[in-house]
Amino acid sequence: MKKNFNIAIVGLGQIGNYLYNELKTKKKDIQIKTGKKINIVAISAKNKNKKRKFKIIKKNFYKNPLEIFKKEKVDILFEAIGHSDGISKKIVETALKNKVHVITPNKALISKHGDYLANLAEKNKVNLEFEASVGGGIPILRTIKEGLATNSISKVYGILNGTCNYILTQMEKTKDSFSNVLKKAQLLGYAEPANPKLDLNGYDALAKVKILSALSFNNKISNKNCLMEGIENIETKDIEISNQLNFRIKLLGITEMINDQIYERVHPCLVNKDSYIGNVNGVMNAVILEGRPVGETVLQGEGAGAGPTSSALMSDLLSILRGNIKYPFGISKNRRLNPKIYDKNKYSNPLYLRLEVKDKPGVLSSITKILANHKISIQRLIQIPDNKRKTASIVIITHNANELNSKKCLTSFKSNKNIIKNPVLIRLF
Amino acid sequence: MKKNFNIAIVGLGQIGNYLYNELKTKKKDIQIKTGKKINIVAISAKNKNKKRKFKIIKKNFYKNPLEIFKKEKVDILFEAIGHSDGISKKIVETALKNKVHVITPNKALISKHGDYLANLAEKNKVNLEFEASVGGGIPILRTIKEGLATNSISKVYGILNGTCNYILTQMEKTKDSFSNVLKKAQLLGYAEPANPKLDLNGYDALAKVKILSALSFNNKISNKNCLMEGIENIETKDIEISNQLNFRIKLLGITEMINDQIYERVHPCLVNKDSYIGNVNGVMNAVILEGRPVGETVLQGEGAGAGPTSSALMSDLLSILRGNIKYPFGISKNRRLNPKIYDKNKYSNPLYLRLEVKDKPGVLSSITKILANHKISIQRLIQIPDNKRKTASIVIITHNANELNSKKCLTSFKSNKNIIKNPVLIRLF
Repeated sequence: MKKNFNIAIVGLGQIGNYLYNELKTKKKDIQIKTGKKINIVAISAKNKNKKRKFKIIKKNFYKNPLEIFKKEKVDILFEAIGHSDGISKKIVETALKNKVHVITPNKALISKHGDYLANLAEKNKVNLEFEASVGGGIPILRTIKEGLATNSISKVYGILNGTCNYILTQMEKTKDSFSNVLKKAQLLGYAEPANPKLDLNGYDALAKVKILSALSFNNKISNKNCLMEGIENIETKDIEISNQLNFRIKLLGITEMINDQIYERVHPCLVNKDSYIGNVNGVMNAVILEGRPVGETVLQGEGAGAGPTSSALMSDLLSILRGNIKYPFGISKNRRLNPKIYDKNKYSNPLYLRLEVKDKPGVLSSITKILANHKISIQRLIQIPDNKRKTASIVIITHNANELNSKKCLTSFKSNKNIIKNPVLIRLF
Repeated sequence: MKKNFNIAIVGLGQIGNYLYNELKTKKKDIQIKTGKKINIVAISAKNKNKKRKFKIIKKNFYKNPLEIFKKEKVDILFEAIGHSDGISKKIVETALKNKVHVITPNKALISKHGDYLANLAEKNKVNLEFEASVGGGIPILRTIKEGLATNSISKVYGILNGTCNYILTQMEKTKDSFSNVLKKAQLLGYAEPANPKLDLNGYDALAKVKILSALSFNNKISNKNCLMEGIENIETKDIEISNQLNFRIKLLGITEMINDQIYERVHPCLVNKDSYIGNVNGVMNAVILEGRPVGETVLQGEGAGAGPTSSALMSDLLSILRGNIKYPFGISKNRRLNPKIYDKNKYSNPLYLRLEVKDKPGVLSSITKILANHKISIQRLIQIPDNKRKTASIVIITHNANELNSKKCLTSFKSNKNIIKNPVLIRLF
């Protein structure tokens, strides 16, 4: 078997940078663990002259990453640009077609083009590894593909976005507003300074859910519209009221099998303060798997940052160096099923509702009437008056209500003149 | 590459039984995931006629498991007898020498003879897999060997024995005595009915610590005497008092690197009730790893029982079928270091001490004097009088005290006539 492996790194942002240094320092260790020598033969980045912790060797640098495969014999490519399409897709595609193994932390790319790229990898008998795309340093994909390989998995859920979890934790701690905490998170590097939207609106977590789904249930990646809600509309008020009710608000990504149909979603949830998931705070990520015969398995770790991501990228590298050639999604493309999607309108959840209303007679009765009309029954109701403004907050915890009725009920609320602000709806987990 | 694999199972207790059925039902699934066919060609058990969920095929049954290799072409052996020596060692040894892959959940065997057997496996170019030996269904060994392969691990600790954790949880919940709760655990199958000693005295957890150590720090298994204390002497009283102080008692297995020396130990600990580890209850196991660059990684799952164990055994099987041939301890035998052992007498811990004393003047001052003589300073002291018996419980939380001084101090306490029962010492984590 091959003894020397040539490596190319495309993208030298925070992750590419860290990885480059890790590869340099761990070269000896890698040789001890695998018997293989690695050699970085090409790197590519937008800006050659940006200040970096290391000096770029001129002859290894490529302005255009696609040139790499024409000039160098590359065995393994690290893609660390991070787009869902464009150059990220192009370079991975080209690599696989050239029988080059690919390792990437790019969840946007894998959740969108994973099936196509996995097929390319399988056809060309090389690996496409993406452990770092979900859960940072938590080896969750490897655990599903290998550690729990013969289990029948029924549900996977967890806290998949460190940025959102950090913001929610800080809002609870400091009682500061969403926008102030976001600014702080950006300063600390926990949220993208330019465009944090994809973290905050649930897109990033949903990409991870889709990857987890495909691996857990042996199906192709679903491209259906899923329930996706972010944390942008969570107010300090909701966090405080939840707290009093012994809940905490968490952005959860969930995928489960219901009657052989897949139900994937990302939305904020009220979780019990005493539950395990209710105590995963800060930038931590956590994934919980339910399977047979293993029971419940929990994995927790730092979900973001160059260190944990790099740890996952290196585990992919060692897997390839050890000759562990395998299907990117655990089984051959021919065996992967077309996903059957559960009709989300049918799903039932208890709800947390907060309505800001005019404080006058008859308002409460009109609200309870709307709920009754949509077959939603009340489990608990709290009215908090604001005498100065002559308004009140009405907080309702409902019994199970299905998504369709909840949606219709929200529409009715919106057209009710006594309700003076957009109603808040958060599902209970 | 080989397409058909012949399998032998030796030992048909709870685990062997479950495994047999899993192999039968998952045969198709295994073929889909690996492209390989498995075939059970031999089984062996003490008693052929014991009532089982399946019928033993006569021609596959061997009274003497060593006969199997003379009569059958076996590729993979499952050893599920569970002794540290004797027939367990003999059969694994014979298999490896015959170039047969071995899979075992036997922590007693691996922690005692793991180095020797791993060398045999390496020499004969076959796998020796023992994922199921630590943490039941939690894929912790695979995570260290593969998922976190290039991390520099500094500490691994956790709740490694489900029996002890169940007993401590139940003692807290029911306020019932150790011996009563043990009886209940035995009835429920959570503790060995005949000889639960190896679970209760910490031996089982220490075997797991030794395996975790060897994998995490790339050293040979240490055979030095370690600090090993069980839960047999924990009283309901200590659980209640701990509770009032916001602690919970857990049996922890810990291994860490201190100045390039390994410090392995198993003993009950007072852990904070709000900490993660303080909330892992019942039969659950949990392992926490600290490494660079990954940070802190947590894995939690059901630690015992045939289902979780079988899940781990099957993951080992798939690893072999996928052709993932590797060193049993992650690196070649020549690279594994001789462990340097940290002098446990130097280690410092705050302590929880409970002394049952005669309630008369001067007693407290004599106790505090003994502590002072051994350089142990008091952080907190509570005296609980028992007026009826004219005795008192003195509970002391100390500042950091090193093991040597603590030991000497205990000896002094024991010879003090005012202390009427054996003093209780539990370390704080």
